[in-house]
Amino acid sequence: MLEAAREIGVDIDSVCGGHHGICGRCQVSLSTGAFPKLGLTCEPSHLSPFSDDEARYRDKHGLLTGRRLACVARIAGDVVIDVPPESQVHKQIVRKRPDTRAVEVDPVVRLHYVELTPPTIDDQRTDLVRLREALQDEWDIVDLTCDGAALAGLPGALIEGQWKITVAVREGNRLIAAWPGLRERLFGLAIDIGTTTIAVTLCDLDTGNVVGEGGVMNPQIRFGEDLISRVSYIQLSPLGVRQLTAVARKAILRLAADTAADAGIELADIVEATVVGNPIMHHIFLGLDPLGLGRAPFTLVVDEALAVKATDVGLRIHPGAHAYTLPCIAGHVGADTAGVLLSEAPHESDEVVLVVDVGTNAEIVLGNRGRLLACSSPTGPTFEGAQISSGQRAALGAIERVRIDPETLAPRFRVIGSDLWSDEEGFEDSIAGIGVTGVCGSGIIEAVAEMYLVGLVDAGGRVTGERTKDYAHVVRSGEVYDYLLHQGPPALYVTQTDVRSIQLAKAALYAGARLLMDNFGVESVERIVLAGAFGTYMDPLHAMILGMIPDCDLSRVVAAGNAAGAGARIALLSRRARAEIEDLVGRVEKIETAAEKRFHKYFVAAMAFPHRDDTFPNLERALANAEPSRLSHSDRLVDKSQPAPRAAR
Amino acid sequence: MLEAAREIGVDIDSVCGGHHGICGRCQVSLSTGAFPKLGLTCEPSHLSPFSDDEARYRDKHGLLTGRRLACVARIAGDVVIDVPPESQVHKQIVRKRPDTRAVEVDPVVRLHYVELTPPTIDDQRTDLVRLREALQDEWDIVDLTCDGAALAGLPGALIEGQWKITVAVREGNRLIAAWPGLRERLFGLAIDIGTTTIAVTLCDLDTGNVVGEGGVMNPQIRFGEDLISRVSYIQLSPLGVRQLTAVARKAILRLAADTAADAGIELADIVEATVVGNPIMHHIFLGLDPLGLGRAPFTLVVDEALAVKATDVGLRIHPGAHAYTLPCIAGHVGADTAGVLLSEAPHESDEVVLVVDVGTNAEIVLGNRGRLLACSSPTGPTFEGAQISSGQRAALGAIERVRIDPETLAPRFRVIGSDLWSDEEGFEDSIAGIGVTGVCGSGIIEAVAEMYLVGLVDAGGRVTGERTKDYAHVVRSGEVYDYLLHQGPPALYVTQTDVRSIQLAKAALYAGARLLMDNFGVESVERIVLAGAFGTYMDPLHAMILGMIPDCDLSRVVAAGNAAGAGARIALLSRRARAEIEDLVGRVEKIETAAEKRFHKYFVAAMAFPHRDDTFPNLERALANAEPSRLSHSDRLVDKSQPAPRAAR
Repeated sequence: MLEAAREIGVDIDSVCGGHHGICGRCQVSLSTGAFPKLGLTCEPSHLSPFSDDEARYRDKHGLLTGRRLACVARIAGDVVIDVPPESQVHKQIVRKRPDTRAVEVDPVVRLHYVELTPPTIDDQRTDLVRLREALQDEWDIVDLTCDGAALAGLPGALIEGQWKITVAVREGNRLIAAWPGLRERLFGLAIDIGTTTIAVTLCDLDTGNVVGEGGVMNPQIRFGEDLISRVSYIQLSPLGVRQLTAVARKAILRLAADTAADAGIELADIVEATVVGNPIMHHIFLGLDPLGLGRAPFTLVVDEALAVKATDVGLRIHPGAHAYTLPCIAGHVGADTAGVLLSEAPHESDEVVLVVDVGTNAEIVLGNRGRLLACSSPTGPTFEGAQISSGQRAALGAIERVRIDPETLAPRFRVIGSDLWSDEEGFEDSIAGIGVTGVCGSGIIEAVAEMYLVGLVDAGGRVTGERTKDYAHVVRSGEVYDYLLHQGPPALYVTQTDVRSIQLAKAALYAGARLLMDNFGVESVERIVLAGAFGTYMDPLHAMILGMIPDCDLSRVVAAGNAAGAGARIALLSRRARAEIEDLVGRVEKIETAAEKRFHKYFVAAMAFPHRDDTFPNLERALANAEPSRLSHSDRLVDKSQPAPRAAR
Repeated sequence: MLEAAREIGVDIDSVCGGHHGICGRCQVSLSTGAFPKLGLTCEPSHLSPFSDDEARYRDKHGLLTGRRLACVARIAGDVVIDVPPESQVHKQIVRKRPDTRAVEVDPVVRLHYVELTPPTIDDQRTDLVRLREALQDEWDIVDLTCDGAALAGLPGALIEGQWKITVAVREGNRLIAAWPGLRERLFGLAIDIGTTTIAVTLCDLDTGNVVGEGGVMNPQIRFGEDLISRVSYIQLSPLGVRQLTAVARKAILRLAADTAADAGIELADIVEATVVGNPIMHHIFLGLDPLGLGRAPFTLVVDEALAVKATDVGLRIHPGAHAYTLPCIAGHVGADTAGVLLSEAPHESDEVVLVVDVGTNAEIVLGNRGRLLACSSPTGPTFEGAQISSGQRAALGAIERVRIDPETLAPRFRVIGSDLWSDEEGFEDSIAGIGVTGVCGSGIIEAVAEMYLVGLVDAGGRVTGERTKDYAHVVRSGEVYDYLLHQGPPALYVTQTDVRSIQLAKAALYAGARLLMDNFGVESVERIVLAGAFGTYMDPLHAMILGMIPDCDLSRVVAAGNAAGAGARIALLSRRARAEIEDLVGRVEKIETAAEKRFHKYFVAAMAFPHRDDTFPNLERALANAEPSRLSHSDRLVDKSQPAPRAAR
């Protein structure tokens, strides 16, 4: 039946090759009775009787009543066969959110069970020749290649499995591993190397299911908090890149080992890895000196996708395993953005979508099915909490949400590690041992946006004492005012300088998006995807109040979470996705912001809150519908006839 | 001029790509005057004037008067150009002995100097794209591929070399290394893994010259002296093969490092390695469990040539380097024999040549231009001095040559470590600190052959007391006699059991050769090549007296020395040689001695000295011309009418 199904193009799953009846993947059911539309009648006798092989499988693994194994059941007349979803080859999908597309699980590494003819004195062909023959006969695999490391597992597997083995084959014809007997599960590791954290996802390559996840701080932090300082370190230290490469690889290996252990598998069970990261993380991981990326004209050593031996990059998973690095797009638009493209698929969107991945720099993609543009904007690390007086990374104790009372100007906030607002009962207890240690990126954005909403910051970005009667929340020194966010200790302020830093960063981000819209020829976007941890915690309303992102229906602004990591997982599970992204990056139009005069024009214009030249009808609508206390103040936004705030820079 | 030469198919050498005038490889001379046969006249003015580039090269590196650089000289009229040998591309040859063929140096890795266009803000293509473009433009290299390890050297080289670099390209289009500026020398390592010793040869890949050599004991010896005991160890120990692999790789790496250091180069200057060894050494080196080779039906895991990443086999030479293992031929006929085939080239011989490589087993090849046959004969380790009462490896203190006085029966011998015979003046002094410690393979062969010549051993292999009057040199115990080779201490005997061991071994060797001759359809061979250290020390006359090898004109019996190692060197230096041996091994007819009934017939027949069924006219002639003292005794051989010695078994 399996053969018949293949002939008519119905792919029924099978690991054991379809004629051993041992893997049980090919379960099907017979539908009996008359099928007038098909013009046939199906009798139970139209299939061969339930066989010994099927009974053996049922006794060992269980088999639902009525189920048959397609590889042993023989067709003896007209039949109507039901193939349940779990027996279909292209059954599995990876879907991150309801609004993202489904991806078929079709990994680059596949398992094949084979039974080899044992050698005799008259047939002394090599093990590899025997294996080639079996794989060709049973799996139509031709021209099998292999490397020494993969071959090393073969003789032991043949001896232990008594010439019955399962092999892992990569890209259709490359032998990478062999195990005795039948093996049905294989694992892959998606690696997302962020400047701050490294995250891995362990997947079952058959089902596509996530079986483990883990994350650690990127230990390169000790060589510099941000990318620029790490590149500086490399410039100044002869062994710099080697050190940074070594610590990153070591951390990844340890993380992989811990994640595998938690999932109850061995590192050697992992046969494939995928890697995303920004260009500098990508280069350092591969051992490539990133100096070209640290200065104009910002060139990559390599942008294409690479499949390197995992052992060559310190990843001691299965010795035959490979690590696939997603392609980079441009000097500041890396394999992380390629991952975002894979998971968010703007190239499959009919709407014009803006994808923003905010890290040390913002990587921005705009487009739709017809055309994609990408650029990077030099936002600096402000949005990560750096270069902010009370700033810190998004870690325990960091203020991540802020609200300011429009009447009293009193702040309330939420802190990472607690679910309570600071004015709720039990807040102090909830942060015992954690404390309030600083303000992270999303916190500072909300704080500044709220300060603007309540009139503590004017449209030009000046912190003003106008509304302050008693200076309970505002500290004045000379002509400059700072806002007291938390009494402390430590006392946390949003200073005038902080607001200026946010202005610079948000203007850069907006200008990048605007430049892409300009080049694309649109005045607005239909959907905005905020990728990265940053996007997850940030309130789209506040981002729009600041003028970080262009105007858009707020319900169409979504946080994609770790979209780059999700893309690494898709590339891990889908061979087609790799071909897709490799093709796609070549078609992305790269816009170099530094080379564009318009970028600087937009940048200057975008310094104001929300800013000078563009309109924000969606934002105005949202604020109009918001809580009454804010309505009055949002007049400033709605009433375009009032020039005052815009002049007051 | 370089372009013109290439157009008419004259390959002038060049590393710098032919238009930079910096490598000076393309030196040529102009011949002036009238050339009536060519119908032209050549004036000095027909070449562009001596240029600044040429002057710069001359001042820096020297340039013979009259020499021009073909890459900068321009043709302005009819010219007649002399290309000196050193400026020709296919100039170099590898020739081991006058009677072996020449091999053109054409290594798999080649150097190419290129100057890349530096990036600008308007041209942000990657380093790799730039490199591809330059290699295509200047060297016609298309579809350049690379792996991560090779790429790692690229950015640093580009920065240091200011966009002028030299790259190493493997197999025409695979980038494996990059260095700043012009680099003209590259090195390769030929590795010969013997059961007892490991030898390496370090070669300049440009000239083909040997720049270093080294050898060490194979540290696997601590797991077993011979192959069988090592395979037994692997069978009994779960980590067996890993241990043996690890110690061998470590020894090779250390040997490579020492040899490189002696030659004044870095390990990283070595960009390619080749490996030969018998099937078990070959498998263990690659980390392949050799258990299939330790028992019938003696199958290999893999027989084809492999190119593995050098780092994958513990060889930390250049990170982009590969190790190429020559193909194996059959279960007992390994990559070492492939090396012998390459260096001795029986497939290019018009004569029928027998090539014998004696180690623990003898690997035997017979054939000519038309046809090649190979087999392995189970000689056991006797010829290596094992399983002999006073036997030892060929090392300091081992008796390697033996002569017995036909009158007095007194032995004299030579010992490894001394150039003197034992009866020469100063012998005792010459071996002070060494001593006489045992008898190695060639020593035992000569001893038994001499014993036969002087009548101490009869044709059937019995040690006889007949000729002994005073028992000064023969010890009798019951009916058995042993010959005292050295008074000691330690006293060294050739016992009756030793003679039987030699009989078994030599009969196996002869039977293998005879079986091949049978299958080939010849009764005699025209040339015999004795490969391996064994062949170097062994006297062909004694080998023939024993009946180890078939009859052959003694002047046509040559010792090839380490022919397997020489083959590894040829494969290192010649890409064509690799293709040749990969093709050739497929055409070798493998004869399985164990499966052949005739082998056993020949084996039994070959037990006698020299032996029963064959004639040895060449040997008889040789003995007839030998020193008078032997003439009388050689009557036994010459006079076929005397059946006595042959019956006396």
